[in-house]
Amino acid sequence: MSALNLLYAQAGGVTAVINASAAGVIRAARAAGARVLAARHGVLGALGEDLVDTAGWSDDDLSRLAQAPGGAFGSCRFDLDALADNPAQYDRLFDVLAAHRIGAFLYNGGNGSMETVAKISAAARARAYPLCAIGVPKTVDNDLEGSDCSPGFGSAAKYLATSMLEAGLDLAAMTSRRGRVFVMEVMGRNAGWLAASTALAADGPDQAPHIVLVPEVPFDETIFLAEVRRVVERIGYCAVTVAEGLKRADGSLVMEQGQDAAGHIQLGGAGQCVARLVGDRLGYKYHWSIPDYLQRAAGHWRSATDHAQALAVGEAAVRYALEGRDGVMPAIRRLSDLPYRWDIEAVDVAAIANLERRLPAEFLRADGLHVSADGLRYLRPLIEGELPLTTAGGLPDYRLPALPVLPRLLPAYSTL
Amino acid sequence: MSALNLLYAQAGGVTAVINASAAGVIRAARAAGARVLAARHGVLGALGEDLVDTAGWSDDDLSRLAQAPGGAFGSCRFDLDALADNPAQYDRLFDVLAAHRIGAFLYNGGNGSMETVAKISAAARARAYPLCAIGVPKTVDNDLEGSDCSPGFGSAAKYLATSMLEAGLDLAAMTSRRGRVFVMEVMGRNAGWLAASTALAADGPDQAPHIVLVPEVPFDETIFLAEVRRVVERIGYCAVTVAEGLKRADGSLVMEQGQDAAGHIQLGGAGQCVARLVGDRLGYKYHWSIPDYLQRAAGHWRSATDHAQALAVGEAAVRYALEGRDGVMPAIRRLSDLPYRWDIEAVDVAAIANLERRLPAEFLRADGLHVSADGLRYLRPLIEGELPLTTAGGLPDYRLPALPVLPRLLPAYSTL
Repeated sequence: MSALNLLYAQAGGVTAVINASAAGVIRAARAAGARVLAARHGVLGALGEDLVDTAGWSDDDLSRLAQAPGGAFGSCRFDLDALADNPAQYDRLFDVLAAHRIGAFLYNGGNGSMETVAKISAAARARAYPLCAIGVPKTVDNDLEGSDCSPGFGSAAKYLATSMLEAGLDLAAMTSRRGRVFVMEVMGRNAGWLAASTALAADGPDQAPHIVLVPEVPFDETIFLAEVRRVVERIGYCAVTVAEGLKRADGSLVMEQGQDAAGHIQLGGAGQCVARLVGDRLGYKYHWSIPDYLQRAAGHWRSATDHAQALAVGEAAVRYALEGRDGVMPAIRRLSDLPYRWDIEAVDVAAIANLERRLPAEFLRADGLHVSADGLRYLRPLIEGELPLTTAGGLPDYRLPALPVLPRLLPAYSTL
Repeated sequence: MSALNLLYAQAGGVTAVINASAAGVIRAARAAGARVLAARHGVLGALGEDLVDTAGWSDDDLSRLAQAPGGAFGSCRFDLDALADNPAQYDRLFDVLAAHRIGAFLYNGGNGSMETVAKISAAARARAYPLCAIGVPKTVDNDLEGSDCSPGFGSAAKYLATSMLEAGLDLAAMTSRRGRVFVMEVMGRNAGWLAASTALAADGPDQAPHIVLVPEVPFDETIFLAEVRRVVERIGYCAVTVAEGLKRADGSLVMEQGQDAAGHIQLGGAGQCVARLVGDRLGYKYHWSIPDYLQRAAGHWRSATDHAQALAVGEAAVRYALEGRDGVMPAIRRLSDLPYRWDIEAVDVAAIANLERRLPAEFLRADGLHVSADGLRYLRPLIEGELPLTTAGGLPDYRLPALPVLPRLLPAYSTL
């Protein structure tokens, strides 16, 4: 295997530390004398033979890569077809792998990407192509099965908990004769991990967030409004975290989707709808915030724990490749909460592909409107630790030189 | 004066560094042997005799105060009546000042608060009450006249430029067959300083933000959409900063205000409206972000320059008080751009009260859709420098002990 090349690629929504995993991969491979090529825009670049050689980056460049959010090689939302449906797609993929003497494919993504790894692993075995297909976990949603947490989540959680802490101080400073409500909408279509993480900001019941709404708990307007009123009557204001995928008991999304008079779709997100509900029903003033991409791209405020885990899964993936393991993903195993200790274990990608891990009921308060002590115990270590940051002109220095594009050895191929 | 007390209070929207000004005031007064009382919720606390004694905070507490966003003493949006309209209000105010032997009133706020300082200064002179009424500048909007910049702005600008840089990397990583547009809505009802600051994120024309929309330039749909299309056709995506107060040529706000079928007011902010416009007209995918309070409360990512200026205006205000100066505000004077040098000068509050400083035309590109080299030269030094931060459990440590409330010496008074 060591004479062969590794191919690394990134997939799905990017995070603040996916590039740290890339840096972990490249450093570990270099240390072992292996060469790392990267496909641009995930498996699309592998199919299209759109490849770069990471040898173009110096050690200094790799340090800057490790602190840069986004996906340095480009990401994609593209699933391979089933082998039986489109064997030509796999022929092409393996032509590219063979042409560039690829012995290991490392795919950095979430549960959908683990399905891609499983498919490629199975296809390689079917055609007796000697390949180690390995998943490298990543998702801000923390919804990967098989891993205690996923790289990307801890940094997004740290950013959101800090944002709620800071916005809560702002909210607390202002007066108004009417109550005041602040709503922050966070990512999470089906899983409330990010919403739950904001609960780390509250040192007690009077501190923001006062209410946390997650997709796992059906939204009940009456119960919610009663709790908002209770908080406002006690302290004058109320801060609420809302997961974007908040749903009613009938399964419908709280976000307004239908069309307005002008035919607009997607009138407002869940946060905006919840904020307006408070204004309409209780007459309180309201503000809402939607960090959107900011929450998964905040390289300036990464969790050191998350960063270390992102590096570690990248390094472990290379180790697995050098050991000839196939169809596995390095997962985080929690050994203890306090002090927080963890290690890496290999899990079978086929067993976890496309599963979605939700918040367990015991991580939520009995009324479903906040996070339980168990939930906080789980979340707390994941946001711990700060990292030094190279800056230039008051901004994080994320600049990286362009990498040399590998000459194409095969005919052009369209993924459209 | 040194035997007398200083009364400090905070007003208007809070910032990431208004508490640094408070720390500057308290430290400078302590060094001079003067006592600092603080009114809660600005002039409302002065009228209501709702006062605390800052002697309760240790030097360590002051260091934590200096890094905490929000307003540690509470803020307000309350204007004193004109003296002629409501002399009883001023009688009450001066009763409180006299009862607590206040010789200087230091009001930390924006252009509206400077009007309050001017009114109190004039009223004191009219009744021969020996008072130094002094303004301490603060506003994320950077719209105070008389000061080259305002404490609070630089940190919000640093946060927003960093956010745009980071979201831009996220946007650049993703692919889509349709174009993709990201819109970030920032504060600024009448002045585009914060929107303009995001231009610092772009190292060249291909980097976010590609378009900056400010309230000073009437929004022209056709010109805007043509520019979005031009950018997307070149690089595949486009990042846009939109000031919340973006207006059309007829003066109407771009944000949707009217009522929808359900009678909702304020359907969406300017950012959301601009994002939807792009989706509707050009068929591009779009995301929008509204940092809202997050942009003015980001204590975890303050500008060291801004922080130093916030401390300096607090210290200077105490110096003015000890010198017996009245009706003035310490302003930032720029001595050079590169290297950036500045000092503090006193300006007359009456001359700047209630004025609103807009972006000058020369800070904008000729087409009004971006920031000029002159604008960048002005903005660049204000976001420079990072600061150490005390953290606990992965979050900034903003905890402060409660201060002792001063016993009331006067009858109760309602400001309602």
